[in-house]
Amino acid sequence: MKVDGKDLRPIFFDNEKNEVCVIDQRILPHKLVIEELKTVDDIIKAIKDMYVRGAPLIGATGAYGIYVAAKNYKEGDFKDYFLKECERVRLSRPTAVNLEWAVDRVLEKVKAADYKDVVALTLAEAKEITEEEAENCRKIGEYGVSLIEEISKKKRGETVNILTHCNAGWLACVDYGTATAPMYAAYDKGIDIHVWVDETRPLNQGARLTAWELGKHGIKHTVITDNAGGHIMQHGMVDIVITGTDRTTYTGDVANKIGTYLKALAAKDNDVPFYVALPSSTFDWKLRDGVKEIPIEDRDPNEIKYVTGFSEGKMHDVLITPEKSEAGNFAFDVTPARLVTGFITERGMCDANEDSVIKLFPDKGKL
Amino acid sequence: MKVDGKDLRPIFFDNEKNEVCVIDQRILPHKLVIEELKTVDDIIKAIKDMYVRGAPLIGATGAYGIYVAAKNYKEGDFKDYFLKECERVRLSRPTAVNLEWAVDRVLEKVKAADYKDVVALTLAEAKEITEEEAENCRKIGEYGVSLIEEISKKKRGETVNILTHCNAGWLACVDYGTATAPMYAAYDKGIDIHVWVDETRPLNQGARLTAWELGKHGIKHTVITDNAGGHIMQHGMVDIVITGTDRTTYTGDVANKIGTYLKALAAKDNDVPFYVALPSSTFDWKLRDGVKEIPIEDRDPNEIKYVTGFSEGKMHDVLITPEKSEAGNFAFDVTPARLVTGFITERGMCDANEDSVIKLFPDKGKL
Repeated sequence: MKVDGKDLRPIFFDNEKNEVCVIDQRILPHKLVIEELKTVDDIIKAIKDMYVRGAPLIGATGAYGIYVAAKNYKEGDFKDYFLKECERVRLSRPTAVNLEWAVDRVLEKVKAADYKDVVALTLAEAKEITEEEAENCRKIGEYGVSLIEEISKKKRGETVNILTHCNAGWLACVDYGTATAPMYAAYDKGIDIHVWVDETRPLNQGARLTAWELGKHGIKHTVITDNAGGHIMQHGMVDIVITGTDRTTYTGDVANKIGTYLKALAAKDNDVPFYVALPSSTFDWKLRDGVKEIPIEDRDPNEIKYVTGFSEGKMHDVLITPEKSEAGNFAFDVTPARLVTGFITERGMCDANEDSVIKLFPDKGKL
Repeated sequence: MKVDGKDLRPIFFDNEKNEVCVIDQRILPHKLVIEELKTVDDIIKAIKDMYVRGAPLIGATGAYGIYVAAKNYKEGDFKDYFLKECERVRLSRPTAVNLEWAVDRVLEKVKAADYKDVVALTLAEAKEITEEEAENCRKIGEYGVSLIEEISKKKRGETVNILTHCNAGWLACVDYGTATAPMYAAYDKGIDIHVWVDETRPLNQGARLTAWELGKHGIKHTVITDNAGGHIMQHGMVDIVITGTDRTTYTGDVANKIGTYLKALAAKDNDVPFYVALPSSTFDWKLRDGVKEIPIEDRDPNEIKYVTGFSEGKMHDVLITPEKSEAGNFAFDVTPARLVTGFITERGMCDANEDSVIKLFPDKGKL
């Protein structure tokens, strides 16, 4: 999407410099720093230290990592060197399913190739994966924008107010984002929209990243505390909620950043439609009961006790609790299907129940 | 309540030093600093700059302010000097109803008194007001503890998990607190309790003050983000929610710190009892529809954009959003009576509806 009028992605191949480049997301929104990833160590550092984040983007970075490995071959047995380097990339974040998937997909492409072709082939495949991720999100936008258009018509062109939680934006997804894709599509069509951005404690991805993305593209937005969503829905200030998801059961239960469930409850209580945008790869085709079965990551309590922000030209971690207090850091929650109005996918929209999901993805439902 | 084994209140008269003392709550939980308020200017500064906060405590500070005014009289017409000083105290925070009420009550006491008696009379009345506030809270604890006791019995002595939002503790209320009073009473009775403390963005009164209070008294607690309450209720980790309130209609609608409504929704969705603790002075005997009629304060957006915390030995404000993003700071929300299980008052408990409230306060219901 646009940053100060120019197209930018969180990962791209710079044709002039012949280098893989990423945005260092750790210092957004305070500074925009682009890093060139010249070596496999650079790739691993970018993944491990969270210069890049979000499943699709981690996958794309891993794919480019295989190209970087091939390019940097100097001497000795190529195959031996190459497979070891690929393994290092694959293991840089062990829980990221997309990373493994992307690395394997690039490797498959060059399994039978000559060494002289490997550099070009891996680069082409990494670019292909990146474009596919972007294209999925573009389609989510294309389908989802109809919801916003409809509300806009009902309101006779008055501002459509959208609420979102966390960052399911282009910074996590190569381009467009998932939850944000319908918003960018609406804005680009000239529909008057305004986005309420939940700050999304503990890591403030909403306040830091979603607000930055929307602002840079020119979309009106207001950052609010995670506490405020209920109040503004109660007072008619939200027309639709759109969030992303980390994992969604084919029965319609949605695991997403902690706090999503509370917003879904408020949406239900105030008759505000609550949509979840996701590429089909995010559906879990095995679990039936998301609340009972999806494991919730318990993260470092210091993410609760300290807040990271910018002051006097640099980043600071400030303590907000008593030093000795315990803190609990539940990273995700599960919103039951009964609170979800519908899903927006790259194949179209559907209701949040088994029948609807399987009707849209009959090939997957057979698993 | 106890701080490191010793009794402490947020305001007290030091008999040895002959001075009014308050805790400077701005730097809690990082440092415990007691300030002596020797002059009317000190009193006004403590109220205006929020060394003290919470309606009952602001009232008590104002009452002591009248004593400080009388004590500091030096020359000229006493009445002229005294009334001007009292007016300055009364106006130090114009929206604080308790402040005006407390100042007027002390003044009433000395209306017909001789100058030589004024110092002693104002001090006595300020002490009286302070004791009454503490006693109201003590009674709230006495009634409310039965709820916790019952749960403890049902769980055969297993830990009772209580969730609270914001700080309705002794720091706001002279002693015991409102929402916290039943918790202190339960702890002091030897009931095994654990408190989930919502951090309560934007100003983090939960993370800063409630966690500090509970910890200093020895009560087990865990600070969580405001986003986490739904998830932990969904997973049976909360037995009861108890919050305070800033204003409650006699029909049962509860205005409290922003985010309370979301917790009430989650409590309802998971069959967790949701109680509100309040002295009867917090009931509004005029408004019928809290959601429509209670005005919600819109505060400084910088409270959202910046987080205050402790780092390298001092307080810092760190920016967490893009510098140019808008931020919305709705300070309170209203939880409809249908989501409230009951009220805990100094006169006993009642359901959250007009009939029940008026049955408990027949004298007030006639207004």
